[in-house]
Amino acid sequence: MAAVLTPVRPTADAVAAAREAVQHSAPLVQCLTNSVVTTITANALLAVGAAPAMVDNVHEAAAFAAIASGVLVNVGTLDDERARAMLLAAQSAHGSGTPWVLDPVAVGGLEFRTRVARELLAHAPTVVRGNASEVLGLTGAGAGGRGVDSTSGVDEAVDAARALSRRTGGAVAVSGEVDVVVAGDRTVRVSGGTPMLTRTTGAGCALGAVVAAYAAVSDDPLLAAVAAHLHVALAGEAAAAAAAGPGSFAIAWIDALDAVDAGAMAAAVVRGRLG
Amino acid sequence: MAAVLTPVRPTADAVAAAREAVQHSAPLVQCLTNSVVTTITANALLAVGAAPAMVDNVHEAAAFAAIASGVLVNVGTLDDERARAMLLAAQSAHGSGTPWVLDPVAVGGLEFRTRVARELLAHAPTVVRGNASEVLGLTGAGAGGRGVDSTSGVDEAVDAARALSRRTGGAVAVSGEVDVVVAGDRTVRVSGGTPMLTRTTGAGCALGAVVAAYAAVSDDPLLAAVAAHLHVALAGEAAAAAAAGPGSFAIAWIDALDAVDAGAMAAAVVRGRLG
Amino acid sequence: MAAVLTPVRPTADAVAAAREAVQHSAPLVQCLTNSVVTTITANALLAVGAAPAMVDNVHEAAAFAAIASGVLVNVGTLDDERARAMLLAAQSAHGSGTPWVLDPVAVGGLEFRTRVARELLAHAPTVVRGNASEVLGLTGAGAGGRGVDSTSGVDEAVDAARALSRRTGGAVAVSGEVDVVVAGDRTVRVSGGTPMLTRTTGAGCALGAVVAAYAAVSDDPLLAAVAAHLHVALAGEAAAAAAAGPGSFAIAWIDALDAVDAGAMAAAVVRGRLG
Repeated sequence: MAAVLTPVRPTADAVAAAREAVQHSAPLVQCLTNSVVTTITANALLAVGAAPAMVDNVHEAAAFAAIASGVLVNVGTLDDERARAMLLAAQSAHGSGTPWVLDPVAVGGLEFRTRVARELLAHAPTVVRGNASEVLGLTGAGAGGRGVDSTSGVDEAVDAARALSRRTGGAVAVSGEVDVVVAGDRTVRVSGGTPMLTRTTGAGCALGAVVAAYAAVSDDPLLAAVAAHLHVALAGEAAAAAAAGPGSFAIAWIDALDAVDAGAMAAAVVRGRLG
Repeated sequence: MAAVLTPVRPTADAVAAAREAVQHSAPLVQCLTNSVVTTITANALLAVGAAPAMVDNVHEAAAFAAIASGVLVNVGTLDDERARAMLLAAQSAHGSGTPWVLDPVAVGGLEFRTRVARELLAHAPTVVRGNASEVLGLTGAGAGGRGVDSTSGVDEAVDAARALSRRTGGAVAVSGEVDVVVAGDRTVRVSGGTPMLTRTTGAGCALGAVVAAYAAVSDDPLLAAVAAHLHVALAGEAAAAAAAGPGSFAIAWIDALDAVDAGAMAAAVVRGRLG
Repeated sequence: MAAVLTPVRPTADAVAAAREAVQHSAPLVQCLTNSVVTTITANALLAVGAAPAMVDNVHEAAAFAAIASGVLVNVGTLDDERARAMLLAAQSAHGSGTPWVLDPVAVGGLEFRTRVARELLAHAPTVVRGNASEVLGLTGAGAGGRGVDSTSGVDEAVDAARALSRRTGGAVAVSGEVDVVVAGDRTVRVSGGTPMLTRTTGAGCALGAVVAAYAAVSDDPLLAAVAAHLHVALAGEAAAAAAAGPGSFAIAWIDALDAVDAGAMAAAVVRGRLG
């Protein structure tokens, strides 16, 4: 009796199908995110074809998470009330089967958010997305980065990511020069992108929301995370080619998130972007 | 004895005069709005020639509403303290004769904001601006939309808008493919615009602020709402023609809000944009 | 015995060295700023080569201010909790020797923020940056402006700025058509810039953050403030030449903040921009 194995690397067809599903089903993504990136996050969701809803107060967060297609929780600028709303949303999402993404911004070095992020972990995020320092910080294996910048390399965080994935049952994506996505025993690398993405406030945070949009249309958290990272990387490359500096890059990136279609994503997989 | 009737449709001259008045008097518009759209709202106000002031704390909201030229209250991302500041600002605006605009974002489906928005209504907003689902939700006639998206057509909301207008004594604007503005027995349709406006976070919310700028310079709430919707629609069309995608659209739209002048608005009325 | 005098006007070499130091050391600038300008502030910091960190909650503000390279406190949209975090951050910055900048947005006319800004003053900001009305309002010498707009000229505020500088021991920068920076007995004027900067939400607030970035790499608060104002003015001029309106101006300005290098700044000093 042969076990049916989930293939390690998403195929071009699977990635293209996920892109089309986002476009056609326009998943409603609830965002509880930091105050710096709300606009670019909402615009990135609209650009990929999703529908953003920034419902982040304690009265509405749980009810909305139960009906949303996906939820993003990003702890970038926490206060007590927002933390409470995030915990309510995460709990409700987990209880209702709504896929949700945790972005542990600057976790590790700062005590308050590290405590909150670890409480959020108990509600089994479908995908955790962060840089290496943040993933290490979340698991207690690292000292945290320098604000939002990672001081550790992606490879240093793979073991922590794998341990985290076993604990949540979902995927863990570590963003860096090459992104690594793990889920259980599977590991996929996504290459490409551009350093300009790190010079644009909120590009990484918006990526977390795009992961939630993909998770809303896919049963496989690893596929969702990989497709979202590839989508964002391809858009970044197109934008870097068109931009005169970091200001025009951010705008061109939103244009490119809209323009990158299923065909472009499948072609990138065929060209070997996933490893 | 013949009653003097307010003409149903604003004339080209009236619309042009309103545009010029915004430009020349630079009305100071206090915004208590949601956290996603503050930047584009302030930039849209600056682009049309108004002066934004985001004074939304409980200590200053009422005092500022008494001296501002106009006030916008948008319930997109409420919390308890912000709700309290909004009620204080609305009460002060109403008491001081400062025109104010209510934007009932996602009201209907979500209980907390629906309750707050209905309390705000008691302070007689000069203009209510929302999509069809929101206007229906505010009056209790609908079940609310899907987050910020309307699930009802504009025509379904005209009766509710008219009832609301009778209750507030002001105008009610229902945004959609064709916008409808009602005030008492008068109804005006504004055609034009572009679907790109719905793919730009905060364009609709910024429209609410632009309505407040026009209401600050006009005694007729219907004229103010109609002129603001026309201004925004014309800018949207110019931006859509110039843009490569939703990112560059948002930027071109701010440029175009600045460029649309009294002559362009009068010409659009002559060409039959108001019905 | 001849006293060594600090030269009144920064030299081209000093300004160029400050620009290079920002680029090379990537100072980590903690921002506790208003909700309207977080994005443009972070993007401006990234564009000049600094690293933004929007850590503004009461739990983390003080600890982060002790390790940050510089801190910006901007009272544009205060509430009680944010005010508390700002006081904690300012106190910690002062105690730890972290240079910090106070931007007293709309202080003078509005009681709550005026009280908070005056409490912040006790923690000896390295640089105060505001328009003339705000500087007058902070010292109690003026009635405050019209929202964020100054109703007083820069020259009217020079005496107040000098008194303030003596009190804090740091520099005070008054932004206007020509900017004036004072520190003790020294006074430097920075000419240039463009009115478009006043039509872009957050350009002035982002300038405060850029001052903090320069203060992080320079022992002389006057040099830091002058270099930052010159940097922002030169970028504004380049952007105004490239832009089609206020929307594209804001984007081009971020591009230009990145492009203005040490050579361009030194050349501007040589051409007589400082007086």
